[in-house]
Amino acid sequence: MNISELQIFLDTEFPQMAQEFEIVSISGSGEGALVLFNATEKHLRPGNTVSGPWMFALADLTAYIAVLSVLGPVAQAVTTNCSIDFMRRPDSGLLMCRAKILKLGRRLVIIDGRIFSEGSEELSAARFSMTYARP
Amino acid sequence: MNISELQIFLDTEFPQMAQEFEIVSISGSGEGALVLFNATEKHLRPGNTVSGPWMFALADLTAYIAVLSVLGPVAQAVTTNCSIDFMRRPDSGLLMCRAKILKLGRRLVIIDGRIFSEGSEELSAARFSMTYARP
Amino acid sequence: MNISELQIFLDTEFPQMAQEFEIVSISGSGEGALVLFNATEKHLRPGNTVSGPWMFALADLTAYIAVLSVLGPVAQAVTTNCSIDFMRRPDSGLLMCRAKILKLGRRLVIIDGRIFSEGSEELSAARFSMTYARP
Amino acid sequence: MNISELQIFLDTEFPQMAQEFEIVSISGSGEGALVLFNATEKHLRPGNTVSGPWMFALADLTAYIAVLSVLGPVAQAVTTNCSIDFMRRPDSGLLMCRAKILKLGRRLVIIDGRIFSEGSEELSAARFSMTYARP
Repeated sequence: MNISELQIFLDTEFPQMAQEFEIVSISGSGEGALVLFNATEKHLRPGNTVSGPWMFALADLTAYIAVLSVLGPVAQAVTTNCSIDFMRRPDSGLLMCRAKILKLGRRLVIIDGRIFSEGSEELSAARFSMTYARP
Repeated sequence: MNISELQIFLDTEFPQMAQEFEIVSISGSGEGALVLFNATEKHLRPGNTVSGPWMFALADLTAYIAVLSVLGPVAQAVTTNCSIDFMRRPDSGLLMCRAKILKLGRRLVIIDGRIFSEGSEELSAARFSMTYARP
Repeated sequence: MNISELQIFLDTEFPQMAQEFEIVSISGSGEGALVLFNATEKHLRPGNTVSGPWMFALADLTAYIAVLSVLGPVAQAVTTNCSIDFMRRPDSGLLMCRAKILKLGRRLVIIDGRIFSEGSEELSAARFSMTYARP
Repeated sequence: MNISELQIFLDTEFPQMAQEFEIVSISGSGEGALVLFNATEKHLRPGNTVSGPWMFALADLTAYIAVLSVLGPVAQAVTTNCSIDFMRRPDSGLLMCRAKILKLGRRLVIIDGRIFSEGSEELSAARFSMTYARP
């Protein structure tokens, strides 16, 4: 699937959330994705930082995009495990999430990623790994 | 903090999300919490199951309630790590989340929990562990 | 498999490690295991506490025993993921590990467990979750 | 600490394990480490692949070296959390582990790493993240 097919798939399957996220790129060899998220007032938690659930949503969606870009529109692919480290508290504004497929197995897909404020990739706000089960 | 103080705290600090969740109980000895979530159409993902981000939000909020019930209104306590296993796909309807404090350290609080459809605690939808850093 | 079959299987398949561990019980309904480990000088790390790798070995072996007790001698079952929290530093002496199967799926088995000094189950040294892929 | 200081520290503090591992490099800016492990017969599990506990030991030691190279000889730094994904089953022979410090906080150090057979870094056998608490 290319970017516009992916964005349409998101809009259809996740109508409540898709408009929050913009797919920036998928790698030509189909092994990763980069997604943009504009964190505003409603995504914050006490301390004026982006809430954990919104960080998780960004990570999960970016990993899902990476999976879809390789496997095609398999809406039934499900996350089976996530481990996430929240390292630095991002301010509101533009957040990016980069996900990379580390293993594309017959049954499981393992993905690694980072969330960072635009322009600060080296000082990531979070790192995560996710496992998806193929249907 | 007791249940009504906690509910007011949530309503104030998380106005966008608090109305989705109802605190059912906190343990007398202050070491855990049980929270109810009514999963409706808007919380579902493809496959008609509750989305990962909403499951994460329920886990994170329940763990946070358990922490607050012991430490008081420390809004600045932050999640530093979460590991979550999605084990069974819950249908829409009433979900419960039970969190228990395993360690209340000077710097870190470690919490363990389960998410399950009401009445099916033995067949949990998810298990998770979370670490909070004390401010 | 019953306890003596499991112990023989371990002795055969893990000759270097099996003698460190003693299977105490497997649950009648086949959903868990309890294993004893005698931590001595050689298992310690700086600070006179049991080393992380030995804690991991105890967790992994106990989870594996729980899997074998249900599935039979499937030596090829492999750990695909582990998340472990080291919560308190155990002294040398008798450590116990209790593992419980949370989900026995067609492809994945998810296990949850605790490590604790004998007699101190409520103050666990570690908690862990493990995923095994069925062959 | 430089490589020879680190190797002496290991030999002193971990006499049972240190001889299994060789520190290949630490990054000049002190933010990572690369460690070599020669997996032989005694490190294998059924299926003729390196056992999980030895993979964990390699990950933990490499992360610890990265921490020591920055903080100095703080033997009391302890692992508080590890999440590890076993992705491909490595054969016996030379394994490498590369660890990188993602966050060096006042209280926690977060490290990310990979284990791979020599010459196959792109097809990692495992990925892991570890958190260390500073003493």
